[in-house]
Amino acid sequence: MKRTQQRRDFVKLTIAAGTPLALAAAPSRALGRVDSALQNDASFFDTVRGRRSVRRFRPAPVPDGDLMLILDAARLAPTSGNQQPWKFLVVRDRVAIDRMREACVERGLDARRARGTAVTPEVIEAVERSMQGYFSAPVYIVVLTDNESRYPAYNHFDGPLAAGYLMLAARALGYGTVFITDSVPDDVTRTVLDIPDRYTRVCITPIGVPEAWPDSPAKKDLEEFIVRERF
Amino acid sequence: MKRTQQRRDFVKLTIAAGTPLALAAAPSRALGRVDSALQNDASFFDTVRGRRSVRRFRPAPVPDGDLMLILDAARLAPTSGNQQPWKFLVVRDRVAIDRMREACVERGLDARRARGTAVTPEVIEAVERSMQGYFSAPVYIVVLTDNESRYPAYNHFDGPLAAGYLMLAARALGYGTVFITDSVPDDVTRTVLDIPDRYTRVCITPIGVPEAWPDSPAKKDLEEFIVRERF
Repeated sequence: MKRTQQRRDFVKLTIAAGTPLALAAAPSRALGRVDSALQNDASFFDTVRGRRSVRRFRPAPVPDGDLMLILDAARLAPTSGNQQPWKFLVVRDRVAIDRMREACVERGLDARRARGTAVTPEVIEAVERSMQGYFSAPVYIVVLTDNESRYPAYNHFDGPLAAGYLMLAARALGYGTVFITDSVPDDVTRTVLDIPDRYTRVCITPIGVPEAWPDSPAKKDLEEFIVRERF
Repeated sequence: MKRTQQRRDFVKLTIAAGTPLALAAAPSRALGRVDSALQNDASFFDTVRGRRSVRRFRPAPVPDGDLMLILDAARLAPTSGNQQPWKFLVVRDRVAIDRMREACVERGLDARRARGTAVTPEVIEAVERSMQGYFSAPVYIVVLTDNESRYPAYNHFDGPLAAGYLMLAARALGYGTVFITDSVPDDVTRTVLDIPDRYTRVCITPIGVPEAWPDSPAKKDLEEFIVRERF
C-alpha cells in the first residue's frame, strides 16, 4: 500500500516536472550500455499515460542500443497472419534531415499561398520555426509497409499497430515521438530518402529527448467512448 | 544488477509457464478492488514481449474495473488532431456472444462450400471447435471509429492505434486478446449488435484469461526490418 502510494507520487512528480520516466536508466544509456529494457522497468500504464506528441527536441543523442529496443518492440505488434510487412527506415544523416525540413518549409508556404494566405515575414518565420522543431531530433523513423507482403490488404492495420508500439517503447525509454503524416508530406520523404513505390508510408516520427514534455491536450471522458452491449 | 537478473529470470519463468505477468495483482482483481494500474506495475517491455494472439479462454471473469483500465489506455492512443474518433462496444451478454458464434460457424461452413471443400462431420466439428475457442471469453470489445469524426480520413490510423494499445493494456493486466477481422465477419457483429453504418469496425477482440499463453509464432530477425539512411 505504501509502495503504491510512493509510486503514484513518483508518477505525478515526474509527469508534472516533464522528466523522462526512465530517468534511472539514463546514465547507462549515456554510456551506450543498455543491453536490455528490463534495466529500465518502466511501468506499462505509466508509459501509456506519459506519452505525448512531441514537436521539439534537445540535441541529446539517442544511442543505437535504445533505437534497437524501440524497433524490437515495434516489430512485435499484432500482424495479420504473422506477415510482419514492415520496414523501419532509420535516418540519422543530418544532410537528409535538413533537406526534408527545407522541403517542408517550401510546401508549408506553398499551401498557404494556395489558400490565399499572405506569406508575410511573420508567416515565414512561424513555418520555419515549426519545422525547426519537428526536425530538431537526432533520429527519424519512417514506418513503411510492403505492398508485396503476404496479405497486403491488411497492411493498413499492421502499419499503425507497429507505429503505436514504437511510440510507446520510445516513451518507456524516456524519448518523445510524434505520428506525422501531412506535416511532412509523403513525397518529401519518398524523394529525399529514395523510398520505392513498393512501400507505403504509414508515418514518419522523430525520436529524441523532448525540450519539454507537453501537457496532454484535453481528452474526452472515458464514458463517452463506451457503448454497452449494443447500439 | 542482481535485481535485473532476478527480473529476467522472472520473465523467462512466467512466460515459459504460461502464467499471466500480472499474477501479483490477481487476488486484488478477484475482489474487484483494482483502483489503479500502478498496483500492477507490469513492465512495458515485458508486456510487449509477453503479448500473444489468444484464441481460447478460461471461464475466469474480467472485472469491470480491469476493463475500464484497459479502455482508458486505449483512448490515450495517438489520434489525428486530437479527434479521438473511437467507440468501444463492450459485450458481456452471453446470448449475443452465442449468436455471433453460431453465425460465424454458419459463415465458416458456407465459405468452405463456396470453395468446393466437402463439409464432412469432421470439418463441422473443427469449425465449431475453433469458434467455441474464439467465443469462450467473458467479454468482447468491438473497436469502432466514427465516420462523422472531425478528420475521418485519418480514422484508419487512429483505429488500429487504439486497438493496439487496448491489447497491450489487457496483457499488462494478465489477459489475452486477439485482433479479429475476417474470422468474425463485420456484418455478423453489425447485425447482432445493431452497429449503425456511421461506425467503421476496426476489429473485434475477446478479453479473458487464456487457457494457456501460446508460444510466439516464428518472427523475422530485427535486422530484416531495418533500412539505414535510404533505400
